[in-house]
Amino acid sequence: MADAPATVYLIGSGPGDPELLTVKAKRLLSTADVVLHDKLPGPEILEEIPEDKREDVGKRADGEWTPQEYTNRRLVELAEAGQTVIRLKGGDPFVFGRGGEEMEHLAANDIPFEVVPGITSATAAPGVAGIPLTHRDHVSSVSFVTGHEDPTKDESAVDWEALADTGGTLVVLMGVGKLPLYTQALRDAGVAPKTPVALVERATWAEMTVATGTLDSIVEVRDEVGIEPPAITVIGDVAATREAVVDFLLNRSDDEPHQGGGEP
Amino acid sequence: MADAPATVYLIGSGPGDPELLTVKAKRLLSTADVVLHDKLPGPEILEEIPEDKREDVGKRADGEWTPQEYTNRRLVELAEAGQTVIRLKGGDPFVFGRGGEEMEHLAANDIPFEVVPGITSATAAPGVAGIPLTHRDHVSSVSFVTGHEDPTKDESAVDWEALADTGGTLVVLMGVGKLPLYTQALRDAGVAPKTPVALVERATWAEMTVATGTLDSIVEVRDEVGIEPPAITVIGDVAATREAVVDFLLNRSDDEPHQGGGEP
Repeated sequence: MADAPATVYLIGSGPGDPELLTVKAKRLLSTADVVLHDKLPGPEILEEIPEDKREDVGKRADGEWTPQEYTNRRLVELAEAGQTVIRLKGGDPFVFGRGGEEMEHLAANDIPFEVVPGITSATAAPGVAGIPLTHRDHVSSVSFVTGHEDPTKDESAVDWEALADTGGTLVVLMGVGKLPLYTQALRDAGVAPKTPVALVERATWAEMTVATGTLDSIVEVRDEVGIEPPAITVIGDVAATREAVVDFLLNRSDDEPHQGGGEP
Repeated sequence: MADAPATVYLIGSGPGDPELLTVKAKRLLSTADVVLHDKLPGPEILEEIPEDKREDVGKRADGEWTPQEYTNRRLVELAEAGQTVIRLKGGDPFVFGRGGEEMEHLAANDIPFEVVPGITSATAAPGVAGIPLTHRDHVSSVSFVTGHEDPTKDESAVDWEALADTGGTLVVLMGVGKLPLYTQALRDAGVAPKTPVALVERATWAEMTVATGTLDSIVEVRDEVGIEPPAITVIGDVAATREAVVDFLLNRSDDEPHQGGGEP
């Protein structure tokens, strides 16, 4: 009889600051045999993993992404060979992370696995920028949506009108490029043009950038400031909070915070 | 001239497992002078904080909650006295945590502060239960909503119809008691009665419980299993994933995971 397969850990690495790894993720990273990752955990976290343990399953040298099928197969292959494997995902494995597909593939192949949640950048980015996602008096919901739809899906897979109608805060992940399209869709759905919007690029990374505007102005702001992916868009009245607090916000991730730091 | 005030740290403690604290939260907890907390971080995390550093600003002996105004004032008072203060919140400070109000109060009183995000139970609970919040092929959004509305607000503050229309996954926090009300509201809004629903009580705590059903059956399931607060409700097709993977899911948080563990 063959030996039992090793365990696969699906781990969220958080938004990028190595200190925002969980204690558990850090412990497991120090003991695993192999870590399958892409670039999304960010350079500081990846550099802490010994190079001989790392396997990059993100963008390949030819610019194409490693097929998901390869990653799925590789996880099973390593576990069956008795190697303790970590699949390290930026943010949380299950918030736009395709961790669900990997989990289903592991179960279908009788491989035991454990899920270790991480902080999704959808909450971390507004947080360190001084933007609460909800407010007891006037915001009872928050919706996370991808701004970078699977191109094979029907164009209308994201219902911006319904999202607008919730009246809650909207957080768009991977939404830098299509910002003009969905801000227009939200205006068409009746969201006020003066609704505050914030863009947070590389939240909690050493070179984080925050830019703010309104539904009407934010595309211009994006271009002026030069916001690039990866970034998070926060849409709603809560986005205006930053301005009221930023002078006292020590949002750098280093040990000696700088007042009002973290901005360009 | 008075000395400069000390820094206040608004810290999310994550869902309850001490190993799901961030490295940064753990470091700051070991060096702060005072930790203001309620019961939501969970017993295991609170027990790790020296008793003489803890101040409970949650429910008082008379069963009433400490007024938010007291907590706000106490944060300022301690910081002005030069004490490094942590305001420790369950989950993330800014996801239904009132951290926004505390942040605004600090800024209005010229107190420097830093936000340290934590893992919200809205993502951690489905995660450890084997439920992905999004799926590349058919779920492009996820909405978090409170099931425990401020009673002074208008009844219609949560627009369940709009939330239903998004077509995305819904996660309800603090929604055990009002489960009958909002499942009915969602059925009225046209959500299919057979839509999968999962309840996750005390996610990542030692005594976590998971129960699953459909929009039609979940109230009965809640009563049979005896699900009590704090718990998270996950509504959407993704909730069915658990059944497909649970036999291989090592979702206990201890060092020696038990296969399929963590259930009643």
